[in-house]
Amino acid sequence: MSEVAAQPKSGAADRDPRDMANAIRALAMDAVQRANSGHPGMPMGMADVASVLFRDFIKLDPARPDWPDRDRFVLSNGHGSMLLYALHHLVGYSDMTIEQLQNFRQIGSKTAGHPEYGHALGIETTTGPLGQGITTAVGMALAERMLNARYGDDLVDHYTYVFCGDGCLMEGISHEAIDLAGHLKLSKLIVLFDDNGISIDGKTSLATSTDQVKRFEAAGWHAERVDGHDTNAIRAAIERARKSDKPAMIAAKTIIGYGSPKLAGSEKSHGAPLGPDEIAATREKLVWTAEAFAIPDEIVAGWREVGVKGAAARGEWEKRHAASGRKAEFDAAMEGELGPDFAKTMADYRQRLSEEKPKLATRKSSEATLEIVNAATELTVGGSADLTHSVFTLTKNMHDVQAGHYDGRYIRYGIREHAMAAVMNGLAVHGGFIPYGGTFLVFSDYMRGGMRISALMGVRVIYVLTHDSIGLGEDGPTHQPIEHLTMLRATPGMLVFRPADAIETAEAWEIALTEHRPSVLSLSRQNLPTVRAGDVAENRSRRGGYVLKEANGERQVTILASGSEIEIALAGAEKLAGEGIRAAVVSMPSHELFLEQDESYRRSVLGTAPRIAVEAAGGLSWDRFIGTEGRFVGMRSFGASGPAPKLYEHFGITPDGIVTAAKEIVR
Amino acid sequence: MSEVAAQPKSGAADRDPRDMANAIRALAMDAVQRANSGHPGMPMGMADVASVLFRDFIKLDPARPDWPDRDRFVLSNGHGSMLLYALHHLVGYSDMTIEQLQNFRQIGSKTAGHPEYGHALGIETTTGPLGQGITTAVGMALAERMLNARYGDDLVDHYTYVFCGDGCLMEGISHEAIDLAGHLKLSKLIVLFDDNGISIDGKTSLATSTDQVKRFEAAGWHAERVDGHDTNAIRAAIERARKSDKPAMIAAKTIIGYGSPKLAGSEKSHGAPLGPDEIAATREKLVWTAEAFAIPDEIVAGWREVGVKGAAARGEWEKRHAASGRKAEFDAAMEGELGPDFAKTMADYRQRLSEEKPKLATRKSSEATLEIVNAATELTVGGSADLTHSVFTLTKNMHDVQAGHYDGRYIRYGIREHAMAAVMNGLAVHGGFIPYGGTFLVFSDYMRGGMRISALMGVRVIYVLTHDSIGLGEDGPTHQPIEHLTMLRATPGMLVFRPADAIETAEAWEIALTEHRPSVLSLSRQNLPTVRAGDVAENRSRRGGYVLKEANGERQVTILASGSEIEIALAGAEKLAGEGIRAAVVSMPSHELFLEQDESYRRSVLGTAPRIAVEAAGGLSWDRFIGTEGRFVGMRSFGASGPAPKLYEHFGITPDGIVTAAKEIVR
Repeated sequence: MSEVAAQPKSGAADRDPRDMANAIRALAMDAVQRANSGHPGMPMGMADVASVLFRDFIKLDPARPDWPDRDRFVLSNGHGSMLLYALHHLVGYSDMTIEQLQNFRQIGSKTAGHPEYGHALGIETTTGPLGQGITTAVGMALAERMLNARYGDDLVDHYTYVFCGDGCLMEGISHEAIDLAGHLKLSKLIVLFDDNGISIDGKTSLATSTDQVKRFEAAGWHAERVDGHDTNAIRAAIERARKSDKPAMIAAKTIIGYGSPKLAGSEKSHGAPLGPDEIAATREKLVWTAEAFAIPDEIVAGWREVGVKGAAARGEWEKRHAASGRKAEFDAAMEGELGPDFAKTMADYRQRLSEEKPKLATRKSSEATLEIVNAATELTVGGSADLTHSVFTLTKNMHDVQAGHYDGRYIRYGIREHAMAAVMNGLAVHGGFIPYGGTFLVFSDYMRGGMRISALMGVRVIYVLTHDSIGLGEDGPTHQPIEHLTMLRATPGMLVFRPADAIETAEAWEIALTEHRPSVLSLSRQNLPTVRAGDVAENRSRRGGYVLKEANGERQVTILASGSEIEIALAGAEKLAGEGIRAAVVSMPSHELFLEQDESYRRSVLGTAPRIAVEAAGGLSWDRFIGTEGRFVGMRSFGASGPAPKLYEHFGITPDGIVTAAKEIVR
Repeated sequence: MSEVAAQPKSGAADRDPRDMANAIRALAMDAVQRANSGHPGMPMGMADVASVLFRDFIKLDPARPDWPDRDRFVLSNGHGSMLLYALHHLVGYSDMTIEQLQNFRQIGSKTAGHPEYGHALGIETTTGPLGQGITTAVGMALAERMLNARYGDDLVDHYTYVFCGDGCLMEGISHEAIDLAGHLKLSKLIVLFDDNGISIDGKTSLATSTDQVKRFEAAGWHAERVDGHDTNAIRAAIERARKSDKPAMIAAKTIIGYGSPKLAGSEKSHGAPLGPDEIAATREKLVWTAEAFAIPDEIVAGWREVGVKGAAARGEWEKRHAASGRKAEFDAAMEGELGPDFAKTMADYRQRLSEEKPKLATRKSSEATLEIVNAATELTVGGSADLTHSVFTLTKNMHDVQAGHYDGRYIRYGIREHAMAAVMNGLAVHGGFIPYGGTFLVFSDYMRGGMRISALMGVRVIYVLTHDSIGLGEDGPTHQPIEHLTMLRATPGMLVFRPADAIETAEAWEIALTEHRPSVLSLSRQNLPTVRAGDVAENRSRRGGYVLKEANGERQVTILASGSEIEIALAGAEKLAGEGIRAAVVSMPSHELFLEQDESYRRSVLGTAPRIAVEAAGGLSWDRFIGTEGRFVGMRSFGASGPAPKLYEHFGITPDGIVTAAKEIVR
């Protein structure tokens, strides 16, 4: 291990990045020790790389953390959050005070265990679950190129830098990210890999033998290795990366816990405080004499130059922005504004549907709605994980985003659901776009990790998930979702829509596009009639659930259903009427929105009669509405392979099934 | 496109694999057409490769589909199921009759839309969700090497062959699989990549630019390209692959829908019937004169030679098996028998715990149990996705499985949760092992795809998922599971245990090890007292839920809880008693097992008093027990970063929270 202190030092005007790096190391050691929790090893190992990147390259202005053309910096190995917090403190983000560092990992502090989007200024995305950051960064880098294609270099021209570790690169999602970025030639994406050879269990050689440089090259990247503690070499490598016409990966050979006499190079420095004695020994080794949480003024001054340079760059950008003929348009895009006519466009479309009464699969109704939406706004960016012609996410006015053709609006995500979710997160947090992407509902399994980050961040990402029940038929149980609606409804912050017809589908799209949180549209493969009758001026799906058909007289039973089972529920109510039993049918396209209504509305919809829920899926999420005495008509096992109508019969999800259930509970 | 019929033909004794291949093509076309559903393109494209593999290499005996030393064949691109069914029909599996092919994709047929383990003879694993097959095959190939290390070449010496497509190789899980297999040098794993350049959306060049050969080489594989319709070249490539000391990937350049004049080479042949006219034209082009579903006798005879050779090989193996001094031990291992003393070992251990009353995190109780279990049986194979020292899955008598050291019992899965799940599936379906693997509960998100396959197959795979609530503390919301218990409990066929103390943890392990279905053990990071009192002769967790502490007199409220919240529930009941309210506490370590009890038992446990459920997670899965009038004390949002005790206070999951809830509902 080379000696940090042995490096030649230069004057204050040209601050040695090694001194600057030691400030990060000290703050990381101290904060983790104070919290008695956290990960000092990564910040100490990557401090030199961070110092070079921030000192010599990065473009940001701590006074204006949301400046649209700032460089994006993503800490994909989010457990090293103290690196980010230390950087933010040193460069001078106003909220990242020394007190915040002293309250690392405490409730209410800005310094949460892992970086959380929106939780402190300048945190570009939530990281921690490994591989999410690098993939979200692909989305940011893609957003940059796409916005550049629309608005030109004057308004959009920045880099996306990523720190990642072995964990990120072992996770499968990294393969999806790397392949996609290489294919799209995202040349302004630069990944700095903390190649320290250590993971939690010990040496990475316990579990991997992959040549990462060769791997990235196979995917079309510029890739090279560098000594992660040789600041000149790091600088030269970043310069080459910036010049490359490919995305770039720099494998920086680092020593985890760099500076710690006993723990450097060991997994023991990864995820626990070093301890007071070792911290003292490290201070000595690094020739760092300042006390805990104290940073010498001249070193702070060196770090503050980052913001001085950034502010100057921002000033230049502001001039170009003010002079741009497209200023208003650009600003509206970055704000994500749908425009004043959007609500009327959608209301008119509902009116048209109520007259035409189409009988369509809701996946087709979704396509029809998207034709309206994508003509009304250019914010939307579509895509699919290689199921375009099944999920119907491509509309007439969209063409592909491809390398060198970033003016498209449709992303070929490939058979990469997890990347699709995380890239959409990146497009959303970058700003300028509303991403939506499609696959089958069952494959939400493959992108759970990314979907949860959408929910945690509260970003406007729309998941178009079709083939949403046994109604998909012959593909069988591997493709038939059972537990997925429950899983998604159980996720805090996620809006789940399961529309029953073309009108509810249009309503769901309207809500999803206007809510600043992620939405799932669960859509049928099979055709469904238009069931909404009467006045369509109001978007009734905003209530989450509503009485679609009232009973003829006092209710004896209330049938709750969603999506493709609404048709069956209506037929069941009809049959019950024939037997003299008065049933109401409640359509519940979104449990979440229904639960957000006031209690009197909810009571008026649910009524006081016994209840049945009908959904061709598992029933856990309906128990809260039907109670222990209610009945559920749905799935209690995995599905089967066969034509859809036969499957509905086989599993008893039929009007007769509803009649039988009703008779068990009608008082 | 080259002409199939133009190939030189050899005599019946040396059947031309091209004729044999055309039998597959015809059956695939015909069955998909009859079903009006399915995927003809892949079977037609890979028919030549399949014919060479089966004719010249594969070792199987259709009369004994479960012969332990058979080669394993995995169709990772499971949508091409008609390839597998055609092969099984042609080589003579007794259940795969022509009638079954004629009933492709119908309810009750053996020929489900995608291959389902256990649904027909010889189906080695369930495939369809892309990437699962190749990763499960890594588990099979690893099981082979590990059993070989135990029992030698005489009893265990077979290959694992995989067909996979572009989809499998784009999915992230494939990266995890390839890295792990390369690291472990699984030289008897041979992947035949259907390199047809087509996916559902069109040419794969829409979405990927990766050099797959270079990619596999980067991960330590032997990899090469071959013309997938040149049978001699295919044969030579497979021979080289078998000789390599690395896992091997052969990228077979094929034409999807090979033989179809209009649709070959197009995505249009992927997932829909060719249509009667095109089928007729294809028959003509292939010079295939037999009628639909008819195969000429001499071609059937060629295919049946596969089984003749296989039966001979099996005969030789049977002799070695009969002569082996380790026959009984081997057979017991393949049967997965835990041995006659296992129940007593576990009962004795419960007795010891009831005397010692340890206060341990259940993750530590799990480790202590594993020390007992892993000493009692050699079937168990542990591992972790790089969290060994957090999930405590490594016991004293285990050492690592590494390349060339396959006699170990502990797998370093790396930071690859999804592969861990699928590899465990492969170990389980291969036979000879009971795999368990650990990570944090929140990262079940990353392996949902593989966990669902465990459940679909009903295999004995044990997921050790620790840090199971906000009780993990400072790592914050990215690491704190909220919806995950609901998601897992909603999955059909999955057993979920959330034990409250050391005794319940031991009970959960005992059940998980003896049930032939997958289990999740949800375990705490924080210490928990032993709460079980009285006689421990019975494994009470087998009931799923039981009265842990009865009320002093007629119940006024029943508190249901699990895991780390049992301690809080008991304290809440105590507080209520102090206020004169009689509360019982029910421990419910497994909802699934409780729901399998008869109604009278369930009623006796739940009682008739109002109910409160307490769990530091989302509440959806408890609504079925507490009803609409009950109360839930738990999480209603994502968590936060802070010390665990403060988080419990912050979110109101406390004895006082229970008292408040009880007062709202006590009658």
